[in-house]
Amino acid sequence: MNERDALRALAADLPHAGDDAAVVDGTVITTDMLHERTDFPPGTTRYTAGWRAVGASLSDVAATGARARAAVAVYADEAFDRDDLEAFVAGAVDVCEAVDAEYVGGDLDEHVEFTTATTAVGDVTEAGAVTRSGARPGDALCVTGEWGRSAAALRLFEEGDDAAVERANELFRFTPRVADGVALAESATAMMDSSDGLARSCHQLAEASGVGIEIERDAVPVHPAVEEVAEGSAERFELAAHFGEDFELLCAMPDEEFEAAAEACPAGLTRIGRVVDEPSDDGGPRVTADGDPLPDRGFTHGDE
Amino acid sequence: MNERDALRALAADLPHAGDDAAVVDGTVITTDMLHERTDFPPGTTRYTAGWRAVGASLSDVAATGARARAAVAVYADEAFDRDDLEAFVAGAVDVCEAVDAEYVGGDLDEHVEFTTATTAVGDVTEAGAVTRSGARPGDALCVTGEWGRSAAALRLFEEGDDAAVERANELFRFTPRVADGVALAESATAMMDSSDGLARSCHQLAEASGVGIEIERDAVPVHPAVEEVAEGSAERFELAAHFGEDFELLCAMPDEEFEAAAEACPAGLTRIGRVVDEPSDDGGPRVTADGDPLPDRGFTHGDE
Repeated sequence: MNERDALRALAADLPHAGDDAAVVDGTVITTDMLHERTDFPPGTTRYTAGWRAVGASLSDVAATGARARAAVAVYADEAFDRDDLEAFVAGAVDVCEAVDAEYVGGDLDEHVEFTTATTAVGDVTEAGAVTRSGARPGDALCVTGEWGRSAAALRLFEEGDDAAVERANELFRFTPRVADGVALAESATAMMDSSDGLARSCHQLAEASGVGIEIERDAVPVHPAVEEVAEGSAERFELAAHFGEDFELLCAMPDEEFEAAAEACPAGLTRIGRVVDEPSDDGGPRVTADGDPLPDRGFTHGDE
Repeated sequence: MNERDALRALAADLPHAGDDAAVVDGTVITTDMLHERTDFPPGTTRYTAGWRAVGASLSDVAATGARARAAVAVYADEAFDRDDLEAFVAGAVDVCEAVDAEYVGGDLDEHVEFTTATTAVGDVTEAGAVTRSGARPGDALCVTGEWGRSAAALRLFEEGDDAAVERANELFRFTPRVADGVALAESATAMMDSSDGLARSCHQLAEASGVGIEIERDAVPVHPAVEEVAEGSAERFELAAHFGEDFELLCAMPDEEFEAAAEACPAGLTRIGRVVDEPSDDGGPRVTADGDPLPDRGFTHGDE
């Protein structure tokens, strides 16, 4: 069973397994685990790792439209180097500050590989928690920020020279879209973050909402760093749509709400398509880009 | 740097690093990571693992005197077996139910070894959050429940026959002392759970409070399972005091509060010694058992 199938199996048993975070009495809770081998390419500093790991959980809070309150992390490694540990904590503290949350510590553990487990909690606003399942035909499909940033960073890590690695670290330190999520909670009918990439996220949102999705390739906002590492629009779209780990938000909302919502989003909001009422063709949800099927392909642990 | 030194290094930087859990605006948050190799002996079922891992975080909530609200877990393994996963979740759900909390799911991750990271959140009561640092000379030193349970379980896992392994699994599924913690929050001047064993916990509480501690060996309540696996009082005390992972509570309180507190604790409360004002002799806190120094020896990852 790969991770996706396992998650589907779990979804039958738990109330919140299909969403980015669980909501209990107005408190949002979400947790993730990241590993050196799969999540932190050679060259990733511990400061960047702390920022990114805690940021990933804050992004899940953002996806529900909640305010971020606090985060904790478990830091596990073969040995504890004081500089590494302090750098990790500094990154964790800074990403929390970037979204007005507090990093309140965590735990240490000895382990065969540098591994970190992060948890963030947040508070649902008056607008309520947004899930993946409320998109309605006719809604505009929107994304925050610019896409392909993490894919570009990975290529720069592979280049390996100092300047490329420094730039890659900078790209890896994304701002979790908490302020955007809070603003979008007012109007979004469905929302999620883009852990698995744009294409796969569209499939997940369509499946959860029982709708179809049509996007336009040229409408997808591509991060400038993608231009630095990819040639031609096909490759750029591949990196922006099928890589993932950009931690931007994908949401649906009534078309007439778009202008006001876009103004309220610090990261910017772009309409990239629309929600349609043909939910499926051959079993999966119907998701198209410029009229052609958009494959449900992205980044899933266990698929590689 | 071993785990204890690393934790001390961290304590300088973070407000809550010395306590079992962080408290932010009345919400308690705590997180842990457990691994197959170090925490789940051969024979541990996934149901027991789910119970115990989530229970460890609920125990940290209990140590602050807060009510437990919810827990999440990351489940990481080389491959996802549906039966294993469902058993883990069932254990997690059941331990949450045992303390009136809700298990609300989590995340999956592919990893080289079965590893789980758990997080629990709770709500501070009117009595406020209890820390390790408020013990005062003259206080009674008390513990909940009976000690040595996990040490006995480990020996039974080693025996390996079906009956022993079944009994070991049962011993591993402790009830987190949340109800006791809430009751003790009214009177406790300092409290913690016993992750690292009774002796080491006494040292930690003494150090955090700037006091000394005197305990009586015969007063320590030993779990009946210890009798099954250990011969003689010296070996029984060793298992009850120096092993750890019993997840009972250790606390200090004014002597005159003891009777009422003991009645309010479902797991029972035993007075095992007292807090004294000679904080240290040779650098470390002064902790004695029957007048002799009680070594600061227990279970710390990175020490083995």
